[in-house]
Amino acid sequence: MTTTVPDDALSDDALTAELWPDVQPEAARRLMLAGLHAFAERGYHATTTRDIASAAAMSPAGLYVYFPSKLALLHAITRSGHQQMLARLEQVVARSGPPPATVRGLVAEFVAWHARRHTVARVVQYELHVLGEQPGYREIAELRRRIERLFRDAVTAGVASGDFDVPDVRTATLAVVSLGIDVARWYGDHVRTSPTSLGEQYSQLVMRMLGAHDTPPTHAEREEQP
Amino acid sequence: MTTTVPDDALSDDALTAELWPDVQPEAARRLMLAGLHAFAERGYHATTTRDIASAAAMSPAGLYVYFPSKLALLHAITRSGHQQMLARLEQVVARSGPPPATVRGLVAEFVAWHARRHTVARVVQYELHVLGEQPGYREIAELRRRIERLFRDAVTAGVASGDFDVPDVRTATLAVVSLGIDVARWYGDHVRTSPTSLGEQYSQLVMRMLGAHDTPPTHAEREEQP
Repeated sequence: MTTTVPDDALSDDALTAELWPDVQPEAARRLMLAGLHAFAERGYHATTTRDIASAAAMSPAGLYVYFPSKLALLHAITRSGHQQMLARLEQVVARSGPPPATVRGLVAEFVAWHARRHTVARVVQYELHVLGEQPGYREIAELRRRIERLFRDAVTAGVASGDFDVPDVRTATLAVVSLGIDVARWYGDHVRTSPTSLGEQYSQLVMRMLGAHDTPPTHAEREEQP
Repeated sequence: MTTTVPDDALSDDALTAELWPDVQPEAARRLMLAGLHAFAERGYHATTTRDIASAAAMSPAGLYVYFPSKLALLHAITRSGHQQMLARLEQVVARSGPPPATVRGLVAEFVAWHARRHTVARVVQYELHVLGEQPGYREIAELRRRIERLFRDAVTAGVASGDFDVPDVRTATLAVVSLGIDVARWYGDHVRTSPTSLGEQYSQLVMRMLGAHDTPPTHAEREEQP
């Protein structure tokens, strides 16, 4: 179940193309990447727009062409991270079968993403409080509610179908989401378990936590079978 | 299981007395408290020694009487947080019975502390990377290993006794500890579940995750019985 090969280590270009396919022009993506690394390393408050512009080989004035403020840059990074996570999870829900398969798929995807994109995830999850009192936060909060709702609906459906046995759906959902988010804190290049493998192992632990008696194969596992 | 009354809301004096009973004189404790709040709010890098000294109603020179650097202050806060957590968990192990009772007690204590002292816990867990490349980190890393070992030993003992059924002790222990740590990220005064109640609910979820068939009462529950 463990491997020393990470799922993928992308070049800057490939990473920005994956993270921000719709952001144009390339200079804006370059600024977002520079902001991402600076925020992940030193935190939002200790990073200046000058730091970010320099890292992107631009002038501070150049940065303002694309982002009106440092806060706007953080907002763009945070929003796109949440949108991407939501889209991935919605795909899982769309292709999954009964509730246990859906929950397994959601956990596997959520955990693997927090491991594979731990730098992005760290900024998205741990610099969020900076946006908390800003007007743009409402949009992020709504994305977070939709993400959490996918998990909660799947757990609720599993309780209704008799597949799960959970004392309190709200607390259980919180614990499931929490397990995934914390991966961003501790995962790194020193970890020998691959993101995909970690996602699978955690999805099995979650099945037990929700009192599932049998653990049906995930979509990926079904596809692997002849 | 939920209550709107937090377990306790301490005055600054009571909090410093609880967190740093051995730190003398009172001015040093005042600086640690000021550092704690500043690091929690803005992060280590964005906080200056001047900010901390001002918040403690002292001059920057006054700060250096007690702490040679901002880093030394963070180290003192982080070390005492880990020491306190370790001492609390060692007490749980000392008074617990069979492995499932020990794991339940450990999780209940760990989760409740991360909720009740979420500001301290946030600094202790999320500013840790700052110390990562410093000489003082070795001491913190050893405290973390001892904390994790208490959990792992209890899980291992439960597998050996047949109480638990876990595919991989290392991953399961990681997930258990992770669940507790993430509480510091999301817990706050807006949360209606009390720290103690959250600790109990999470300890039940962990029992299921570890495949425990019956969940014996914790020490606290045993004491409540006539």
